Parts: sequence; structure tokens; C-alpha cells
Amino acid sequence: MFHHTVLMNLRDADAPFVAGTEAFAARVRAELPYVRDYHFGRNVASRAAQFGWVVIATFDDARDHERYQVSPVHQQMKAFMAPHIAEVVACDVELPARGSPR
Amino acid sequence: MFHHTVLMNLRDADAPFVAGTEAFAARVRAELPYVRDYHFGRNVASRAAQFGWVVIATFDDARDHERYQVSPVHQQMKAFMAPHIAEVVACDVELPARGSPR
Repeated sequence: MFHHTVLMNLRDADAPFVAGTEAFAARVRAELPYVRDYHFGRNVASRAAQFGWVVIATFDDARDHERYQVSPVHQQMKAFMAPHIAEVVACDVELPARGSPR
Repeated sequence: MFHHTVLMNLRDADAPFVAGTEAFAARVRAELPYVRDYHFGRNVASRAAQFGWVVIATFDDARDHERYQVSPVHQQMKAFMAPHIAEVVACDVELPARGSPR
């Protein structure tokens, strides 16, 4: 399983912006059958620092993650969000199947 | 599913330290039956910034995550890693089941 996590420091994350971003996340889930899970929401960690929002996505492998990166719906979502993104840190990890050697 | 991600900027992450941390991760997987998945390794994202290492853990819910936080094996792992941790950002998110309302 490939885990893709994007921690974001958002500016002016008002209700219309949050609703618009959630609508894009729903489109990603509905339109990209190779996306295993996809979620936009609050980072509730006590050590979140300035990164109060997150996108978490899981894929079967790195290739499906690359397909998502270049998909039209993700490109549109990025353009919609861009004016509100003050800072981003990403985390990509390929997790071995449980029980396999690491 | 509760996703717990810890992005780390590590100092002096030499081979013995990495092997020791991986051994703790293996103990977490072996000893805590409520941990759904648990992985320590490199953050391969191009936008990783200074956070080159990560722990990714998944649990059924927030309560199991709290059990893990206070477990002896995790406390020992934290003490082992502490001298090497220059900076940490955490991300905690409760993901709705796929297909449920968000």
C-alpha cells in the first residue's frame, strides 16, 4: 500500500473554500477507481504545528499515485486550492504488506 | 480508520540507529494486536522538506491510538529515538469508512 499524506498550512480556509475542497475530494473518490481512500480534513494532532489541514490518500502502489497526480480532477483541485496554501509538507511511503520482511 | 503519521527530521540517523528503530517498530507490530499497521522508514516525497523520516500507524479508532501512545514498547521506542529527533510534525486523522457521509 502506498500512503500519500499532504500536510497544509491554509490561509483563509473559510466555509466556502472547505466545502469546495471537500467537493473535489468527493470527485476524486468517485472518479478515480484506483484510489483506495482519499480524505481532506483537519489534522487533529497535538503536535500539528502550523499544519492544521491534511489530504490523506492510499493507493495500491506508487504507479497509481502517479496516475492520480496527473489526473484532471487533481489538477483542478490543486488550482482551486493554490491561493489558500501557505505551506505544504508531503509524505510518501510504500508500506510493505503486513507480515512481509522489512 | 485512525491514521497517525509522524514526520521527523532526524540527526545522526546512522545504520545502528535505523536498525534499532526498525526493531522497535517490529516489536510494536508483534506485541500490540490492536495496531493495524505500523511502519518506520524514509519519506520519499519530493516535497518532504526537512522531514526525511516517518512513522505511519493505523488503528481502528482514536482509542486504540491512545492505548499505543502509553504502551511500554512505544515509551521505550520514544526514549531510544529522542536524542536523534531534531524536529517533529504529527498528523492525526479519523477517516470515515469509504462510502459513508463526510
